[in-house]
Amino acid sequence: MRVNDQDMRTIWERDGVVEIIDQRFLPHELKIIALETLEDARAAIADMKVRGAPCIGATAMYGMAVSVRNDSSDAAIKTAYETLNASRPTAVNLKWAIDECMKAMDGVPEPEKADILFAMSAKNCDDDAQMCSNIGDYGKTLLDEIAKNKDGLENEQVINVLTHCNAGWMATVDWGTAISPIYKAFNAGMNVHVWVDETRPRSQGARLTAWELEQHGVPYTVITDNSGGHLMQHGLVDICFVGTDRTTATGDVCNKIGTYLKALAAFDNNVPFYVCAPSNSIDWDMQDGLREIPIEVRSGEQEVGWITGRDEDGVIRRVTTMPDPAKTRNDAFDVTPRKYITGLITERGISAANKAALLALFPEKA
Amino acid sequence: MRVNDQDMRTIWERDGVVEIIDQRFLPHELKIIALETLEDARAAIADMKVRGAPCIGATAMYGMAVSVRNDSSDAAIKTAYETLNASRPTAVNLKWAIDECMKAMDGVPEPEKADILFAMSAKNCDDDAQMCSNIGDYGKTLLDEIAKNKDGLENEQVINVLTHCNAGWMATVDWGTAISPIYKAFNAGMNVHVWVDETRPRSQGARLTAWELEQHGVPYTVITDNSGGHLMQHGLVDICFVGTDRTTATGDVCNKIGTYLKALAAFDNNVPFYVCAPSNSIDWDMQDGLREIPIEVRSGEQEVGWITGRDEDGVIRRVTTMPDPAKTRNDAFDVTPRKYITGLITERGISAANKAALLALFPEKA
Repeated sequence: MRVNDQDMRTIWERDGVVEIIDQRFLPHELKIIALETLEDARAAIADMKVRGAPCIGATAMYGMAVSVRNDSSDAAIKTAYETLNASRPTAVNLKWAIDECMKAMDGVPEPEKADILFAMSAKNCDDDAQMCSNIGDYGKTLLDEIAKNKDGLENEQVINVLTHCNAGWMATVDWGTAISPIYKAFNAGMNVHVWVDETRPRSQGARLTAWELEQHGVPYTVITDNSGGHLMQHGLVDICFVGTDRTTATGDVCNKIGTYLKALAAFDNNVPFYVCAPSNSIDWDMQDGLREIPIEVRSGEQEVGWITGRDEDGVIRRVTTMPDPAKTRNDAFDVTPRKYITGLITERGISAANKAALLALFPEKA
Repeated sequence: MRVNDQDMRTIWERDGVVEIIDQRFLPHELKIIALETLEDARAAIADMKVRGAPCIGATAMYGMAVSVRNDSSDAAIKTAYETLNASRPTAVNLKWAIDECMKAMDGVPEPEKADILFAMSAKNCDDDAQMCSNIGDYGKTLLDEIAKNKDGLENEQVINVLTHCNAGWMATVDWGTAISPIYKAFNAGMNVHVWVDETRPRSQGARLTAWELEQHGVPYTVITDNSGGHLMQHGLVDICFVGTDRTTATGDVCNKIGTYLKALAAFDNNVPFYVCAPSNSIDWDMQDGLREIPIEVRSGEQEVGWITGRDEDGVIRRVTTMPDPAKTRNDAFDVTPRKYITGLITERGISAANKAALLALFPEKA
């Protein structure tokens, strides 16, 4: 999407050089770094320079490519696979990406392996962007419908979308999932405004979603995670779009902690609540999200106890509001039961949040 | 309650000197200041050195007392009344406190007026503390019941209470409202643990509730405002206690923004959700909280955009996580409809959240 009035992705290759945005410095600094070695790729994923399952997958695939270019021996390939596989424990797309690399190299002469992986990585980025673009097109039809229903009303005709965390293009290669319909609507001239949940503790809404929208020119307002229910009670939210880290075959959704609270409020106020779910987020083996999906518990002291930001002089510092930053707990995700989800927006269309509807869109998974 | 192993209130008078805790510096510094003039009292309320409706009321009454001691002329009394009345727009107890002062001085010879106000102020503080103590005793019976039901179970027998914002003794003269039952249970040797919602944007949970509990020795854990629903889904919350800024005659509750989301989650998970409501928080003229209670919208840039805390060197600084701290909105309260409230804990006992039950406890309001 647009950054400083130019088109940009989260990862790209030009003349053999692979580059990424180091997202840890946003929104304060746009830092671009090259991935030249296996260690560069491992650190990019492990240190969360990139995050978001699709973006991690794309980085892992390019990580295999640069590693094999540097050393295409069987031993080096095995090391690369194991190193990348261990770089982040929960990202679904990571293992898929490196498994695809291993399959593609099978039986290929050593000198040709790197070229094959570079070509695959480029195609994977294009495919991921296309999948997100499709989700955006389907999601936009819901915004069109809302616009039609508002037509002729006396209010300002603004369509207010609420989102939680960052499921924008920074979490993918391009377009994003939950923000993709918003970009499509905005690019088509629709009067759309986004309520951006701050998303404590890591503040991905305030840091990344706000930055994305700011750069692309989409109107937005950052609100505390406490505010969404109140706005819905007062008719200030037309629809919610969120992403998903894992979707069960039955339509339960595991996403950033706090998603469940917004789904409850949407349900209580008859606000449509949609999850933008590329099919590679669906775990077809799982039936009960609350019982089956393991929830990552991260450091409370580092992420809840201390808040990192820019001070008035532009210096990055961390502060605490608490008497003891260690007395904290930090569950990273929660599960929203399917009954609170109006629908899942996939790259093949919009599905109700249940098994039969999902299988109708993806019959090959039956 | 206990601070540095000594008993303390939020406001007190000793040998004619009125002192308060300047709460703006907590939890980083315990700063005590004297109220010697009308201007001291006005600034204490207006600049939020004290906050919480009962604590504001107590401060306003002592503010009248010190003002009249300095100048007991009719003109000065009129100025004092008007100045204090304008110091904070929404606190219900403020106007009540200064009206009581005016009534008490009616027909009293000028030299005796100050003494009367000092005596009244001391009594008001004791009365408020007693009211909160009673709420604690009634609330503790609910914790006793939970303990009884857990008895013999194999788990750790910890009773987990979730609270939002600060409705502890810092918001009153002593004991608090929502935290009072917890102090009563803890003092009686019960194994109680508190989930403290951070409560963005002003972080009263992380700053004040955590500090109170830390000082008194009550086990607690600060969590982000996003987390409570997930903890309830996993059986980690036995009961919720929150305060109220205004309660309708029908049982709707206006409290710190985000209270509504926790009430929804409690309802969805069959977790009892109680509001600790001293009767002076009840607005007997109001029937519909969502339609009738005006919601204060505060500065988004100052409170949401910038976060103030202590850095690693102990220096108080403010930082932002956002590309533009001005693109924020800051509604201070929300309304929880009565249907999501298990009960109201008043100084006269526990009531269902409806008009008939409330009037049964307070028949003089019929």
